[in-house]
Amino acid sequence: MTDHAPASPVRLAERLANVETSAIRELFKLLGKPGIISFAGGFPDAALFDVEGIREATLAALAANPGAALQYGATEGFDPLREQLAAFMAAKGARGVAPGDLIVTTGSQQALDLIGKTLVSPGDTVIVEAPTFLATIQCFRLYGAQLLTVPVDGQGADVEALERLIEQHRPKFVYLIPTFGNPSGAQMSLERRRRVLELAVRTRTLVVEDDPYGDLYFDVPPPPSLLALSHEVPGSRACLVHCGSLSKVLSPGLRIGWMVAPPELLAKATMCKQFSDAHTSTYAQATAAQYLASGRMPATLERVRGIYARRAAAMVEALRQELGAAIDFVPPRGGLFVWARLTGANGKTADGGELARRAIEQGVAFVPGAPFFARDPDPATLRLSFATVDEDRIREGVRRLAAALG
Amino acid sequence: MTDHAPASPVRLAERLANVETSAIRELFKLLGKPGIISFAGGFPDAALFDVEGIREATLAALAANPGAALQYGATEGFDPLREQLAAFMAAKGARGVAPGDLIVTTGSQQALDLIGKTLVSPGDTVIVEAPTFLATIQCFRLYGAQLLTVPVDGQGADVEALERLIEQHRPKFVYLIPTFGNPSGAQMSLERRRRVLELAVRTRTLVVEDDPYGDLYFDVPPPPSLLALSHEVPGSRACLVHCGSLSKVLSPGLRIGWMVAPPELLAKATMCKQFSDAHTSTYAQATAAQYLASGRMPATLERVRGIYARRAAAMVEALRQELGAAIDFVPPRGGLFVWARLTGANGKTADGGELARRAIEQGVAFVPGAPFFARDPDPATLRLSFATVDEDRIREGVRRLAAALG
Repeated sequence: MTDHAPASPVRLAERLANVETSAIRELFKLLGKPGIISFAGGFPDAALFDVEGIREATLAALAANPGAALQYGATEGFDPLREQLAAFMAAKGARGVAPGDLIVTTGSQQALDLIGKTLVSPGDTVIVEAPTFLATIQCFRLYGAQLLTVPVDGQGADVEALERLIEQHRPKFVYLIPTFGNPSGAQMSLERRRRVLELAVRTRTLVVEDDPYGDLYFDVPPPPSLLALSHEVPGSRACLVHCGSLSKVLSPGLRIGWMVAPPELLAKATMCKQFSDAHTSTYAQATAAQYLASGRMPATLERVRGIYARRAAAMVEALRQELGAAIDFVPPRGGLFVWARLTGANGKTADGGELARRAIEQGVAFVPGAPFFARDPDPATLRLSFATVDEDRIREGVRRLAAALG
Repeated sequence: MTDHAPASPVRLAERLANVETSAIRELFKLLGKPGIISFAGGFPDAALFDVEGIREATLAALAANPGAALQYGATEGFDPLREQLAAFMAAKGARGVAPGDLIVTTGSQQALDLIGKTLVSPGDTVIVEAPTFLATIQCFRLYGAQLLTVPVDGQGADVEALERLIEQHRPKFVYLIPTFGNPSGAQMSLERRRRVLELAVRTRTLVVEDDPYGDLYFDVPPPPSLLALSHEVPGSRACLVHCGSLSKVLSPGLRIGWMVAPPELLAKATMCKQFSDAHTSTYAQATAAQYLASGRMPATLERVRGIYARRAAAMVEALRQELGAAIDFVPPRGGLFVWARLTGANGKTADGGELARRAIEQGVAFVPGAPFFARDPDPATLRLSFATVDEDRIREGVRRLAAALG
């Protein structure tokens, strides 16, 4: 016994030294400020949720089999939902994906966690895009991954740079968001998709395709997902993990994602999931299964696509008009984001973090791009979401952004 | 390039070498056999779920605020649910637990996962009861924990043995299920509970209390939880993590658990949860919050307790009558399980695994006890759940068990 304060009984695991609380999380605390126009979110517009359809789906699930909807379920997922998800992917061109080829996850965030848990030993190399989804960076780092980055342009990841990185570093896997990625908004070209699959087969490299945004295209559908394309590239299915989600197209609150993977990996991910959360809410799974079975999804998607397309167009036009040469970006063809770069033209700031602080003062919020880089951050970048703001407010928000730029 | 089959692109993480697929999971595959009476489950009876109350709770949640119920939510949990859970614990004697002192988890299984993730570095020592919950053993081992065990008798964990283990090994934490534990069914005495808290304070040791069964007592309430008792032992709250769950008392399918922990640990667990599944289903959380607010829980608990009490009594009586001196057990005072030991009297088998195989042939299933020991398994033990079988079938199942014993 001493006169000092007693030692804390909490001694943290070493892995926590690899991560820090998300910069975005801190920024979100500012969003409560009254009157602020937020381009900072990474979420869909709650006003567009098909509340009536979801309510009916839950009532149908409880009427059909209340015990199954409320009891423990298989770790792999609720079978009627696995069947609906296989059909949902088949309708988008993914051939030969049986219900047993996927497991349901608690949002696609859990698929990323299970990928980290099953594959990453401390010190292992993983390749991600620059920029990429912030929670992916932190999720993999918690398992001790060393992240290398492949640059992204308007056509997606640079496949030649990826090839060099793979050959030099033999990564555990490569993580890509080929379609309307968060935050890049980029759409990988068909030709690059093919080359990624060929590269995976040739170098025996596992590729993880995260595809939560592919359904949110504005006019023409994007090229097929890597999963859908895999039947054209012999051997590529064995090198491919595909993560899907209902969060952006139906409701994030249900926390329904899924993961297609080679059988050996799927079995290990299932075992890990057993000790992570036993299974995803059967109540949410039974609701999602009934919703997909109800046939309402195509109309829901159609409506949401049209609204996001108009909001994206309003933002693109306003950015060009209000910020002109001070900003550079590729207009998105789907998803929730405009990814932009400050040019520094006419002596304006080219620092996204600086602009974000000034913008809050002007009553508009966005997320600076630097945290989305696992290494070598580009401080001139910004992520602007148009998803949750109507067109008039988008124009007003961009005017405020221009005022903040000075 | 060689003539051999191409190398698998899947290279697993080293941590997977620490665990294996649950023996129970394999056994569950046999339960589909027609006519089998199962004492093998670890789950509540779906026929007792308050389906009408849950349906109304979801409708109320969608009526009150559909956007909030279906949108992304805070990682810490849905505030109205955190308030209800704090009140739920306060009604059971836990003083001074504010809503901000807990986070909502995806079942209490996720609380265990977050405890492992935030606290366990490979090689760290953790003390668990012998026997303890199987998924806890595997969950902590995945993070590299070395498990030591403290024996359990009818009064709960042996506190003197625990003290010796703590002083010798300085564990990262001690994991206990003090009330109607799975599989032991034991109820730790009030005196031992106090001594555990005093020991934690004196040795600066973190104690994790898992309490999913405490509400399922048969006649008189059990002693206060360690959490409720902590205000009587100065300094003990800072050494205590408490995990709760609605799975056994409302519905496992909602996947609603929670975790109370010292602020530093709670903040780190929240960060880890952000990268595990972002947050627990807001749809399920909003439903659970409305259910608790509706005031239906006390009557639900009252009803369920009565039914489980009668089933437990039927099993205890039948075991004594049919198996007599061949089996030894402490009658449970709550929970879902009878934990028993084969004595080998009169030359009968004393091997739980052997009896389990013979029992399946006779049309009755249970789980042998050996897998519940993190080390030094006792092969004579059995776990028998009375929760999902009515009294007549319990008597018939025990007759079959006696026939299997020969």
